[in-house]
Amino acid sequence: MPAFTVSDLARRVGADVLGDPDRRLCGVASLGVAGPGDLAFFAREAMREAVHGTRAGAVLAPRSFEPGGVRFTILRVDDPQLSFARIVRLFHPEPVPAPGIHPTAWIDEGARVGEAVSLGPGVVVEGGARIGRGTWVGPGTFIGRGARVGVGCRFGHAVSILHGVELGDRVRVHAGARIGTDGFGYVPGPDGAHKVPQIGGCVIGADVEIGANCTIDRGALDDTRIGDRTKLDNLVHVGHNVRIGSDCLIAAHVGIAGSSEIGAGTRFGGQAGVAGHLRIGAGARIAGQTGVVRDVPPGGQVGGTPARPRRSWLKEAAYLGRLPDLFQRVARLERGSGAGGGAPRVRRDGSGVGEGEPRVRRDGSDAGSA
Amino acid sequence: MPAFTVSDLARRVGADVLGDPDRRLCGVASLGVAGPGDLAFFAREAMREAVHGTRAGAVLAPRSFEPGGVRFTILRVDDPQLSFARIVRLFHPEPVPAPGIHPTAWIDEGARVGEAVSLGPGVVVEGGARIGRGTWVGPGTFIGRGARVGVGCRFGHAVSILHGVELGDRVRVHAGARIGTDGFGYVPGPDGAHKVPQIGGCVIGADVEIGANCTIDRGALDDTRIGDRTKLDNLVHVGHNVRIGSDCLIAAHVGIAGSSEIGAGTRFGGQAGVAGHLRIGAGARIAGQTGVVRDVPPGGQVGGTPARPRRSWLKEAAYLGRLPDLFQRVARLERGSGAGGGAPRVRRDGSGVGEGEPRVRRDGSDAGSA
Amino acid sequence: MPAFTVSDLARRVGADVLGDPDRRLCGVASLGVAGPGDLAFFAREAMREAVHGTRAGAVLAPRSFEPGGVRFTILRVDDPQLSFARIVRLFHPEPVPAPGIHPTAWIDEGARVGEAVSLGPGVVVEGGARIGRGTWVGPGTFIGRGARVGVGCRFGHAVSILHGVELGDRVRVHAGARIGTDGFGYVPGPDGAHKVPQIGGCVIGADVEIGANCTIDRGALDDTRIGDRTKLDNLVHVGHNVRIGSDCLIAAHVGIAGSSEIGAGTRFGGQAGVAGHLRIGAGARIAGQTGVVRDVPPGGQVGGTPARPRRSWLKEAAYLGRLPDLFQRVARLERGSGAGGGAPRVRRDGSGVGEGEPRVRRDGSDAGSA
Repeated sequence: MPAFTVSDLARRVGADVLGDPDRRLCGVASLGVAGPGDLAFFAREAMREAVHGTRAGAVLAPRSFEPGGVRFTILRVDDPQLSFARIVRLFHPEPVPAPGIHPTAWIDEGARVGEAVSLGPGVVVEGGARIGRGTWVGPGTFIGRGARVGVGCRFGHAVSILHGVELGDRVRVHAGARIGTDGFGYVPGPDGAHKVPQIGGCVIGADVEIGANCTIDRGALDDTRIGDRTKLDNLVHVGHNVRIGSDCLIAAHVGIAGSSEIGAGTRFGGQAGVAGHLRIGAGARIAGQTGVVRDVPPGGQVGGTPARPRRSWLKEAAYLGRLPDLFQRVARLERGSGAGGGAPRVRRDGSGVGEGEPRVRRDGSDAGSA
Repeated sequence: MPAFTVSDLARRVGADVLGDPDRRLCGVASLGVAGPGDLAFFAREAMREAVHGTRAGAVLAPRSFEPGGVRFTILRVDDPQLSFARIVRLFHPEPVPAPGIHPTAWIDEGARVGEAVSLGPGVVVEGGARIGRGTWVGPGTFIGRGARVGVGCRFGHAVSILHGVELGDRVRVHAGARIGTDGFGYVPGPDGAHKVPQIGGCVIGADVEIGANCTIDRGALDDTRIGDRTKLDNLVHVGHNVRIGSDCLIAAHVGIAGSSEIGAGTRFGGQAGVAGHLRIGAGARIAGQTGVVRDVPPGGQVGGTPARPRRSWLKEAAYLGRLPDLFQRVARLERGSGAGGGAPRVRRDGSGVGEGEPRVRRDGSDAGSA
Repeated sequence: MPAFTVSDLARRVGADVLGDPDRRLCGVASLGVAGPGDLAFFAREAMREAVHGTRAGAVLAPRSFEPGGVRFTILRVDDPQLSFARIVRLFHPEPVPAPGIHPTAWIDEGARVGEAVSLGPGVVVEGGARIGRGTWVGPGTFIGRGARVGVGCRFGHAVSILHGVELGDRVRVHAGARIGTDGFGYVPGPDGAHKVPQIGGCVIGADVEIGANCTIDRGALDDTRIGDRTKLDNLVHVGHNVRIGSDCLIAAHVGIAGSSEIGAGTRFGGQAGVAGHLRIGAGARIAGQTGVVRDVPPGGQVGGTPARPRRSWLKEAAYLGRLPDLFQRVARLERGSGAGGGAPRVRRDGSGVGEGEPRVRRDGSDAGSA
């Protein structure tokens, strides 16, 4: 691992130093586990206790940080976490794969592979595909005929880039993600559902990151599109003809059904879902597990299923907790006025809910089940 | 791309033509992007504006369509979308892979591979497996020992067909789907959960389509079964011993726990879940994100968690929105009658819900988290 | 298939036999499908009818089981299902792959592969990786540089074990699971979200089982950890820096966001989610589809979104079903007292919920969508 002096690092991120500028640092770590040779960072009040107990040799801190009795060298910056993120790569450079085409990779005639491209073991590139300069392709990854991959992309193990998919520069795709698979499109016919051929494209912007085992369908007729700098966590599903703007953050297990449009800068909590043919305005905030079934205006904040404005949803949740009490109050009023009614008992259906919980089962024909 | 005259196409789908039967068409497109050489289709009122603005050369429309001043040639049919779906493949034939066995594929002795089968690079077929005539197997796909694959199947990249799995004819399996993996079955033992060997089978009917990165477990003792023509979107989970009837449509991220039975023609919205050991009757409709914890009768429509009849669920949701008002009304009545009570404030737990939403975090030990 | 006498089997599981100890059994089956040569098991009252109708030659039953007129030989044990699980492997030994390294596997220099290891076709092992004795690695699986794999592990097809990941002994990883992928970590910068390099590790304990297509991210700075004997069903997501204790059971589609800690022995129902930076105490029970947004105490049982104590959640669900009635009662009281108000109609937003349900669509530009 390389080593750097505090003044080296301070220069790179524009820090002013309180303490020893010649101290040598050989690693980065969190406040809790850092030792005298490590750089850590302090970014918010919740870390106050940790920063006072740390054994780190140096700490990145906000410009306003007061040294009051700490023993580490301080590097004061505008944004400690951003500076830290930049410094991490100095100590831990991204591992560089072997350059060139692995002997077990299979490149069809007519594929064009740029300079400094690395294709790992078992990679398959079909005819007409183009791979930009400096792109790294992990083992077992498939790049279909006519696909276009930008420069400096990073693909993990066993990624699928289907025929005709277009990816911008510096796109990261993690292991097992599928880009350009068929959308879920059928028309009822006399003999059951008839598959609608999925002939649209799939266009991914620059600096997009796509998590492990995500699935992004190609368009039915037109294209599925994801804008620049948008980031998808793992296991996200994007249906056909969806258009996602730039700079979105989409957490794990989110599903977006066909033809919906997501404005720039939207953020989704985990396991949220969007029904088909909707518009989510730019800058919206979709809480985790929300079920969006109507359009959301720009900047809208929604939660719940069906989704409603976040404020209403929270208010309802609060009132919901006091429902049992309300039933009693109404019953009291009725007794006062001579009317009927009473409190319900917990229904049998309620008690069944826990069956969604996995048990180590003890039943018959099916030994053990979720 | 091939070209067809309007009369060619009309003959194939039984259309009557208003306009120029000799017009040559060289592609298909949606109304919004079609040009003079394209065929588009008009299927419902929501497309009325688009059809009047289209630049398409010809449009498939219902028998009742009135030409009133449009410039395109009209092909009137019983079902414009179904006719369109059939015509798409004329212009965009399914890409045919190289026939035969790729030199990097590995076929164990004792596997039987039918005529006109295509096995892509890196495919692995174990002993005893049988692959029917005309089936295409994408690169990196695995077919385990003793598996039986019907004729005319289409498997994408990196699919797993585990040992002994049986698939009918014309089954489509998209990239990364896993069929016949172990179910989630344990028995508590003195030293922790004891794995129940999963020795059942997995039987998939004809014309089934299974989306990218789905997981379908084999049975524990008996078989997991999926009926003819059922379609699964991406990332669907099917537990062990589940039996799904024919002609179901199951949207992305749906999970069906062990031993549940799903009747024919059932439809699931995205992210819905079914607990174990339940029966969903034929033709049921399960709304997106529903949590089914009890049996659903044939034709039943349910929503919510725990699932309840769709009508009750919607009614409750409507009343829920007026809860704050109801609390005020009861308080008013109490004041009139001299009783106590009041409106609750938004609880702290409510305000925490947004933590399910991804943020570009600025905290400490863990630089950036979902 | 091997055959065993009843007395053979009885000896192995400590059963007392009522009936013919010399009866030869050649298989295991559920009560419903077992024949005269099969062993089945009876474990709970719900199987009472099945046990009396079974054609099984022998049945494992609790010590208290009364033979009353059954024709099969009875093996009475303390725990019929546990005994059955043990016996299954006698009849169905785990299929043993070809030993040694397949000619199409690619092992980098400096990797250390133990005795009796099986590496299937197309396996890739990078430099510095170590694989313990007796581990089986399925076709197309990737083991990154410096990864450490214990003894007796079982990896399916196309698994990803990324660089530096550590797995204990006897870990099972099913097809398509990704272990050690990058976490979802970004810091806002002047030019959009800035990726935080994910340099932490991923440490998996002994006897852990990880389902098909799961994704387990490596830590950002510190490690992601999963304790001994914990079992994950399919399609589970575990974010960076998450720490899961031992002996947990986590059903399909569960998502756990970054830095949360899950105590030992916790059980999750399917599709439940946990927001980031939370603590779930040991032995907690999280119902299916629960959205956990606050800490849960040891042994806590929660349900709903946002999660609340299971009892409150069920109570609220019960009262919710009687809300329409409550509105009427309040209106009646108001009429009696001369105040206003009335029942709401089902809102338009409610009626849109069904759009989360997949339909065979009949719309325009996008032929068929989820």
